[in-house]
Amino acid sequence: MTTNYSPQLWLYDTTLRDGTQREGLSVSIEDKLRIAKRLDQLGIPFIEGGWPGANPKDVQFFWQLQEDPLKHSEVVAFCSTRRPNTTAAEEPMLQAILAAGTRWVTIFGKSWDLHVTAGLKTTLEENLAMIRDTIEYLRSQGRRTIYDAEHWFDGYKHNPSYALQTLETAMASGAEWLVLCDTNGGTLPHEVSQIVQTVISHLSLVIGQETMTMPQIGIHTHNDSEMAVANAVAAVMAGAKMVQGTINGYGERCGNANLCSLIPNLQLKLGYSCIAEDQLTQLTEASRFVSEVVNLAPDEHAPFVGRSAFAHKGGIHVSAVERNPLTYEHIQPEQVGNRRRIVISEQSGLSNVLAKARSFGIELDQLKAEAKQILQRIKDLESEGFQFEAAEASFALLMHEALGGRPKFFEVKGFQVHCDLIEGKQASNALATIKVAVDGKNILEAAEGNGPVAALDAALRKALVNFYPQIATFDLTDYKVRILNGHTGTAAKTRVLVESGNGHQRWTTVGVSTNILEASYQAVVEGLEYGLLLHSQAAAAVKASS
Amino acid sequence: MTTNYSPQLWLYDTTLRDGTQREGLSVSIEDKLRIAKRLDQLGIPFIEGGWPGANPKDVQFFWQLQEDPLKHSEVVAFCSTRRPNTTAAEEPMLQAILAAGTRWVTIFGKSWDLHVTAGLKTTLEENLAMIRDTIEYLRSQGRRTIYDAEHWFDGYKHNPSYALQTLETAMASGAEWLVLCDTNGGTLPHEVSQIVQTVISHLSLVIGQETMTMPQIGIHTHNDSEMAVANAVAAVMAGAKMVQGTINGYGERCGNANLCSLIPNLQLKLGYSCIAEDQLTQLTEASRFVSEVVNLAPDEHAPFVGRSAFAHKGGIHVSAVERNPLTYEHIQPEQVGNRRRIVISEQSGLSNVLAKARSFGIELDQLKAEAKQILQRIKDLESEGFQFEAAEASFALLMHEALGGRPKFFEVKGFQVHCDLIEGKQASNALATIKVAVDGKNILEAAEGNGPVAALDAALRKALVNFYPQIATFDLTDYKVRILNGHTGTAAKTRVLVESGNGHQRWTTVGVSTNILEASYQAVVEGLEYGLLLHSQAAAAVKASS
Repeated sequence: MTTNYSPQLWLYDTTLRDGTQREGLSVSIEDKLRIAKRLDQLGIPFIEGGWPGANPKDVQFFWQLQEDPLKHSEVVAFCSTRRPNTTAAEEPMLQAILAAGTRWVTIFGKSWDLHVTAGLKTTLEENLAMIRDTIEYLRSQGRRTIYDAEHWFDGYKHNPSYALQTLETAMASGAEWLVLCDTNGGTLPHEVSQIVQTVISHLSLVIGQETMTMPQIGIHTHNDSEMAVANAVAAVMAGAKMVQGTINGYGERCGNANLCSLIPNLQLKLGYSCIAEDQLTQLTEASRFVSEVVNLAPDEHAPFVGRSAFAHKGGIHVSAVERNPLTYEHIQPEQVGNRRRIVISEQSGLSNVLAKARSFGIELDQLKAEAKQILQRIKDLESEGFQFEAAEASFALLMHEALGGRPKFFEVKGFQVHCDLIEGKQASNALATIKVAVDGKNILEAAEGNGPVAALDAALRKALVNFYPQIATFDLTDYKVRILNGHTGTAAKTRVLVESGNGHQRWTTVGVSTNILEASYQAVVEGLEYGLLLHSQAAAAVKASS
Repeated sequence: MTTNYSPQLWLYDTTLRDGTQREGLSVSIEDKLRIAKRLDQLGIPFIEGGWPGANPKDVQFFWQLQEDPLKHSEVVAFCSTRRPNTTAAEEPMLQAILAAGTRWVTIFGKSWDLHVTAGLKTTLEENLAMIRDTIEYLRSQGRRTIYDAEHWFDGYKHNPSYALQTLETAMASGAEWLVLCDTNGGTLPHEVSQIVQTVISHLSLVIGQETMTMPQIGIHTHNDSEMAVANAVAAVMAGAKMVQGTINGYGERCGNANLCSLIPNLQLKLGYSCIAEDQLTQLTEASRFVSEVVNLAPDEHAPFVGRSAFAHKGGIHVSAVERNPLTYEHIQPEQVGNRRRIVISEQSGLSNVLAKARSFGIELDQLKAEAKQILQRIKDLESEGFQFEAAEASFALLMHEALGGRPKFFEVKGFQVHCDLIEGKQASNALATIKVAVDGKNILEAAEGNGPVAALDAALRKALVNFYPQIATFDLTDYKVRILNGHTGTAAKTRVLVESGNGHQRWTTVGVSTNILEASYQAVVEGLEYGLLLHSQAAAAVKASS
């Protein structure tokens, strides 16, 4: 940690440990390293990397970080207290923790008497010994420790004096942070506030009687009551100095406290400095990056960083927003690296289309036919089933077209797709042949693929890659099909959303047809087109700035 | 409203008005009526149905409800105050409100001076006149009124005396509820608490000086700071008696206060009665029903009602949870109609598989080979890319198979799928032929479809529907493809998740292959199988109880 780093609040990220408990989420070691590096850039002081004693993958992770350390953040190894009726020195899990080579270690221990007696099946005294022994041992090995008081609030409610004893024990053993964990996620903010205040007063009294350093208080919340962020804020306002959470609120059950909501609330609204201002502007991108790495769709409606967080729908106040944003937006989206969006929908009026064009850097004259034309085209397409809100790339191409400026990178002259699946024989690949013209030159290519869409996509790229080498960096990253009007009795339309990426950006294009292959073809072709458009815009921007 | 209904808090649902502002959401009149009926059953006293003056669809909606009224809930028409410089009696929008024929009307008005002068471009005095005139007019026409103070908290912060004047005006005009709206969603709970208390004291003083009935205070929050629920709870604890929100938190930008989190918090934790106990047990189903009707995927990680809300992962404490649930769960899932789930994953141990089997009603003997066999099969399949967490129906079938009890509804003997897509000609449909055996009898059928998967699905159903007429009620409701290992360089596997439904239940099945058609085929066949299994289980249950 750089020595001049002194935030008012210490952020502690557990995306790589608690976050990975989320159902359906599973990350490789490389994924974890990529995320850790990004959190380092974001300015998060503590990054809980995993539990090397329990997860073999984590042993590797920590080892890699010893070889190639982070620049600023402290990476933290996580572990439980030693088991009952042994010593910390003889506990193999703790050896794995030491081998991880981190300066800091987080130890979690039981705060709730019931968990000790019924869960661990040991005595209340032994649990205190486990806490003391583990922390003292780690300190003797040169580690700085954070103590996570598991099930703190419920434990306190059921047996406050025992719960406080566990904290006192951790404190007396030299833990530098005592983190109160709402492990079940059931506590409410007013309770958190009152209990945190009680803890701080109580410990101050105890400290007063001994010669000890007062540890600082941290808070670790879960979202089972939709209060994780509110609880963390309540704790901070009651004196906690560390907040634990995850990017995008990933975690078990309903998730952990979402750092992407917490940080802007604490820093922009309550004035606690956590990370540098320019690091805060990276928040939205960090959120999307992490969702990308763990292969989860980003939550478009997430506070602060969601794609819809500053999306204004309905013609009524769009012009009012542009004139005076803070009367309709609670913060400036740029402060967290997000941006205002004007949503085009059935209810859109002309002002929405104009605003949207502006957001793509296109100035439309209100009186010109283009604007009305675009609006009409959108309405027509939407009534056919196109959904531009989810396919901004297709919308952008539509606008360029209406303005007469849609670049003609290629022209598909014809194609054919053939697929067979015969049970009992090995399933054959689909085969696509495509004829494309680039700069007046015809190219005929054929390709196989795992299915008709993949075959078409492969043939198209094969045909184009010599003219547009950047295509080699494009990937089809996702493919969604939604069946429209399924219950109307008429032929159901299929809407296909294809997501493409080039390594650092993703874009979505849409196709609609009663035939899924036709719909897929539309979306795939537009996906390539948009990728080429982005590339040419980036090249032009570089040229302009040199 | 039944006269003996006297909750301690009044719930006000705006799913059908504010909720529909969510990006990508669009509902038909029939959809709105279905939702309204469900909310009625749930016991929600106020249902804001729409804005008939602004939305033609809503005129129809209210008219339908006059013909076929709800049993208990009050349906409410929503509207703005009259425009400046006219009279309420001459305002056409208000005529539409009256035509809606509701007993209650909600009027929203400006609380923030800036919105009045810069937005509405009128005077502060005229705005007060608009509030007064509109409410008095509606009352003269026999309507009971609720006043929504738009942008209340920001308006109060910027010009408290004017904001309070708008409330006093509404109160003096006879509004029965004054709802403080955090329209920008930027307020924090401690601010809400303090401002609500201030409002209540202030109005009590004013009341004391006049002969007026004290209106009650309501709260309407948005989730831009991830505080919508916390803010609503803070307001209630400060004296508010009405909470406004939406099912699943649907709404513009980051959504409205989520009633599915609010109601259990208020009722189960804070002891405010809102709806009947047995109605609360319908909450989870109501949440899923609404998401189904609006065609949005349910949020699996939603507090209280999410599929993962009580999902326990990791072998460690699963046995502890079963012995003593309240030490690991903040409420009993059954209280909101949800259930505990044991998650099977890479980290699963034997105890997880046993617990999961139990949740499907299957008792496995710990020592028997089946349990270990299932675990091994799961691990093998998962390493190939199957993801059972998202495809519980496939998992259930796997378990039945391992126990030797997987019913053989049909056996696919062979099939062939052929599809052509020739640009320039009309895209032809895909054609599938299938040979199936049922009870030893062979059936050969062919069918066309909008694509290879649809054709296979259609042919299979055609072959089976005479034996299993219930198949006619099954629908393919969604189809998702995820490309696995896209960046490893080896042949990418494709995972297909197929969601099927029978009108009141949905289930997901999975298929994995390098060939998308093969993967789709697996998922489709299991989807039909599971639907038939459900049907036979339901039939057996009916028989058993008669």
